[in-house]
Amino acid sequence: MTELPEPSPGPGQVLLKMRAASLNYRDLMVVKGLYNPNQPLPLIPFSDGVGEVMAVGAGVTRVKTGDRVAGIFMQKWLAGELTKVKAQSALGGAIDGILVEYVVLHEDGVVHVPEHLSDEEAAALPCAAVTAWNALITQGGLKAGDTVLVQGTGGVSLFALQFAQLVGARVIATSSSDQKLERVCQLGASDGINYKQTPNWDKQVRDLTDGIGVDHIVEVGGAGTLAKSLGAIRLGGHISLIGVLSGTATEVNIIPILMQNVRVQGIYVGSREMFEAMNRAIAQHQLRPVIERVFPFQEAREALQYMDKGSHFGKICIRF
Amino acid sequence: MTELPEPSPGPGQVLLKMRAASLNYRDLMVVKGLYNPNQPLPLIPFSDGVGEVMAVGAGVTRVKTGDRVAGIFMQKWLAGELTKVKAQSALGGAIDGILVEYVVLHEDGVVHVPEHLSDEEAAALPCAAVTAWNALITQGGLKAGDTVLVQGTGGVSLFALQFAQLVGARVIATSSSDQKLERVCQLGASDGINYKQTPNWDKQVRDLTDGIGVDHIVEVGGAGTLAKSLGAIRLGGHISLIGVLSGTATEVNIIPILMQNVRVQGIYVGSREMFEAMNRAIAQHQLRPVIERVFPFQEAREALQYMDKGSHFGKICIRF
Amino acid sequence: MTELPEPSPGPGQVLLKMRAASLNYRDLMVVKGLYNPNQPLPLIPFSDGVGEVMAVGAGVTRVKTGDRVAGIFMQKWLAGELTKVKAQSALGGAIDGILVEYVVLHEDGVVHVPEHLSDEEAAALPCAAVTAWNALITQGGLKAGDTVLVQGTGGVSLFALQFAQLVGARVIATSSSDQKLERVCQLGASDGINYKQTPNWDKQVRDLTDGIGVDHIVEVGGAGTLAKSLGAIRLGGHISLIGVLSGTATEVNIIPILMQNVRVQGIYVGSREMFEAMNRAIAQHQLRPVIERVFPFQEAREALQYMDKGSHFGKICIRF
Amino acid sequence: MTELPEPSPGPGQVLLKMRAASLNYRDLMVVKGLYNPNQPLPLIPFSDGVGEVMAVGAGVTRVKTGDRVAGIFMQKWLAGELTKVKAQSALGGAIDGILVEYVVLHEDGVVHVPEHLSDEEAAALPCAAVTAWNALITQGGLKAGDTVLVQGTGGVSLFALQFAQLVGARVIATSSSDQKLERVCQLGASDGINYKQTPNWDKQVRDLTDGIGVDHIVEVGGAGTLAKSLGAIRLGGHISLIGVLSGTATEVNIIPILMQNVRVQGIYVGSREMFEAMNRAIAQHQLRPVIERVFPFQEAREALQYMDKGSHFGKICIRF
Repeated sequence: MTELPEPSPGPGQVLLKMRAASLNYRDLMVVKGLYNPNQPLPLIPFSDGVGEVMAVGAGVTRVKTGDRVAGIFMQKWLAGELTKVKAQSALGGAIDGILVEYVVLHEDGVVHVPEHLSDEEAAALPCAAVTAWNALITQGGLKAGDTVLVQGTGGVSLFALQFAQLVGARVIATSSSDQKLERVCQLGASDGINYKQTPNWDKQVRDLTDGIGVDHIVEVGGAGTLAKSLGAIRLGGHISLIGVLSGTATEVNIIPILMQNVRVQGIYVGSREMFEAMNRAIAQHQLRPVIERVFPFQEAREALQYMDKGSHFGKICIRF
Repeated sequence: MTELPEPSPGPGQVLLKMRAASLNYRDLMVVKGLYNPNQPLPLIPFSDGVGEVMAVGAGVTRVKTGDRVAGIFMQKWLAGELTKVKAQSALGGAIDGILVEYVVLHEDGVVHVPEHLSDEEAAALPCAAVTAWNALITQGGLKAGDTVLVQGTGGVSLFALQFAQLVGARVIATSSSDQKLERVCQLGASDGINYKQTPNWDKQVRDLTDGIGVDHIVEVGGAGTLAKSLGAIRLGGHISLIGVLSGTATEVNIIPILMQNVRVQGIYVGSREMFEAMNRAIAQHQLRPVIERVFPFQEAREALQYMDKGSHFGKICIRF
Repeated sequence: MTELPEPSPGPGQVLLKMRAASLNYRDLMVVKGLYNPNQPLPLIPFSDGVGEVMAVGAGVTRVKTGDRVAGIFMQKWLAGELTKVKAQSALGGAIDGILVEYVVLHEDGVVHVPEHLSDEEAAALPCAAVTAWNALITQGGLKAGDTVLVQGTGGVSLFALQFAQLVGARVIATSSSDQKLERVCQLGASDGINYKQTPNWDKQVRDLTDGIGVDHIVEVGGAGTLAKSLGAIRLGGHISLIGVLSGTATEVNIIPILMQNVRVQGIYVGSREMFEAMNRAIAQHQLRPVIERVFPFQEAREALQYMDKGSHFGKICIRF
Repeated sequence: MTELPEPSPGPGQVLLKMRAASLNYRDLMVVKGLYNPNQPLPLIPFSDGVGEVMAVGAGVTRVKTGDRVAGIFMQKWLAGELTKVKAQSALGGAIDGILVEYVVLHEDGVVHVPEHLSDEEAAALPCAAVTAWNALITQGGLKAGDTVLVQGTGGVSLFALQFAQLVGARVIATSSSDQKLERVCQLGASDGINYKQTPNWDKQVRDLTDGIGVDHIVEVGGAGTLAKSLGAIRLGGHISLIGVLSGTATEVNIIPILMQNVRVQGIYVGSREMFEAMNRAIAQHQLRPVIERVFPFQEAREALQYMDKGSHFGKICIRF
């Protein structure tokens, strides 16, 4: 922990006093040095946070002092296609993040957050929620009557569960814990599958869908679960490839992709335009993110260790 | 009313004993001779009905005796783009309809209907519900957080209200009756506007949407309301042009379409593939169509007269 | 004509020395006071121009001194959906335009132009070419084997003719002059229709398309030609509503839109992302805009008068 | 070779006298017993052929005696989404194919072929050309200015090369033979890469695209080349997964898919609607498929052996 001078906003910039942050698996990898072997140091970690605008620079029109805003994951991905320049503007990786008391961002890089959310809930949105929104809504075009499979109970999976329900889709969830499956069913999943007790969960997914398979899978396991996902998806279904929790490389049989007309879509968070569309839906439905636990700022290390255990249900947050 | 011999199904065909039918404004126009001035007569009217499969011809695989099915509006629009050949296969117009005790259709021209629906509710689907689904879901890509404007309380408008809610959109409804507005709000609309008391309802729509306008309008009024709809739509919004209740031609100022990037999409019912996707959503959510009143088969004429009064709320049905 | 002090670029801005401009019908309306009755004055007119970067402000990374760039029509529409804020950033209307020796723009508001183009050709792109690209490619999804109808020989229509051919579509063109029709056929149109000699040109369009109608119409006539366009479009076809050359309001019969499943899409220029995608296509194919005539800077008034006569074939430009 | 009785068309069916067929790699796998281990036998092989309508059954309206038509690959995939029922109607696999003098198909399962094509050229279309069209046009939305990578010189790759050019895209081709690369460049490819001489061809693809990578890859190599393709694709690019020439399973590192926002889309031929759209483009541009060699009907075995050598350039055909 270091003392840094309080920064001041230049033209087009805003100064934020951070109130809350949330952790993503990526932050754990960054801190462990596994995310980018060539990461220049020092680096202020963490991408997701919400703060209050304390001052604005010349020409700022999008926000004003006193507003509560979140930083967007890639500071330059405002809308449209992802480009290299945009990709190289991710907080807490390509550039300094938000685990610091005062942060200066460009006004284009922040969004207002829904009023009904607590600071911690709002801080949960930038990476995990936008990723789930992009996967299911922007890219997936999910609609009422569709069925979605979500894996585990991490942040992205629970947001995917919530968004799928917002648009009228049915959700099947997997977990290694019956207790967690009970909770996802309370959150609205129609069915839970314990993948420890049912290693061939792809077959059970088919049984639950009249032998057809699901329309959409939010694949967070990565290489370790992709083969099973290919067995659980319907002809012409979509797999959003998001995470690498269970491995980054594996022997994949590509025949099912081919013969089943499957779409595998890599999802790397999303744009500010998606964030804002998502916020409208969250506000309209007074939806609340699932927060597992809140650590004080001084215990950011403990928060990361807690995430590393992998037994959480929802988002782990930091209170400044 | 005439006696016709009971038909028998040829290869690929099914024989239906009709159980219920529903009326659409188009049927009224057909019967009045206003729909197609060159309509060859005699014609069995009505497009929408549900019946029981009494017999199947050689090679039929999609349905079996005892199944309850509805005819699809255009018998040849199974999927994909609408073509001239497909358009010329509409029941109760281009070809004979279903206001008759026994009907023979090709097996491709029928779909199973959700089990939880009564016969009358199921008979309400083929034209009005598929039209609303096509407008909002297939063409409109409506999503959670969007806002939809529906006009009046006819079949298409109430289905649009229900489908919009299924996918998490907010609904603003117009009507000339406060009593009906109360009912649409009970059905889930967030706001109702009495267009008699508020002739400039486009302005009120803007006020209800932070000055932005709605994302989607299901335009059933036709020429008489289009100008107002152009005042109520947001930049880049979608207007589904469906009906002609208040006129077929009008002085339209096209500048708003142009400068506001508006999309006006004509919607002429939809395909069997849309019908089946809609049925999955209806079944999953146990959604029930709004039925205004059921007339016995012998009172089909009275049913049409009742529709002509225009004061109904939902679908008018026939019980065989 | 006035003398203005040479401006200097602030942070994130670039200083351009203008080399060439091009005229659009909108500029004529702006100058006549017909575009926006509440237009604050004085206003530097014209949206389309190309210049050389003379200096860059702090933090500029997209361009460097010596680069040749064009301003984008709406300075804030970089990508994604059009919003009110973006719409209110149009050069030569909402804000000052480029008919001036030195212009300062934000670096986000300029794009590099293809190297093989002359300054005048490059200056022809920002409004007319991007409009045609948005209409046919971004919104229209035009593909090989489709047929497009273009109206007249103004800038948008000739760009539409060129882009349609790039993607392998067939083009039918209308004009009041056989001589111009000859030229559009030399440019690659398969058929030309003289709408003075053939007032019912919609019927001829059907005859040229096996009775089916065209897939796409780039409607620049506005109210005066829309009814005919509805007679020339195929079932499910797209009409890009762009201009108002022959009127802004008319009695439109909406039945064809409805029964023919037609999409009428208002097109208000396009984003920087579209501009850049278009530039890649123009560069790859070494495509050259059609320039009718170039006037010197001092004769901007004569250039506008020349446009007002309406007999041009392609773009009218200004040389600084 | 066997004698079969001449079949006769039932209601809705057509009798074809076959004139020409074409081979696909799938046919080789079917004949070797590698395509489906549970394939019921006997089976008439081959999916692709063109014939003359000799007789039509009752109620046939799509074709008439004397017409030249091709069978569609999946007899029941007319339009819309692929379903299990549609997928189980593939000629020469799920059902009998067309390597036989007389074939009876349902009228829905045939399409007219462009008049300018020879019988062999027309017979080349049903599987390989529709696959390439679906990959690049229907699913890929390829447009002018995009860049496509095609692998090798088999049927799908050469059709992809031709269709990419029709819509104004640039093509980079790989092959193990400089002579073949010369031929693909004559066919319009901008660049050829000899993957034997340049094993790290992904790097060269990046060099040829300013470090960005290509927009679209038509992946026919399968597992053996997918890793390299992931190195050659741009951020947000599309990989159409089509073939398995160099393996069906491999160690795939999924990080690039994820971080690069890549879409991997399995392509299993396409629908009749795609076939017909493709035919319009082929006819409009008088495009001619590349035919490597034509064998007489009696030498079908030799034709398959010739394909097995893998040194062909374009389609191998059979003349009846």
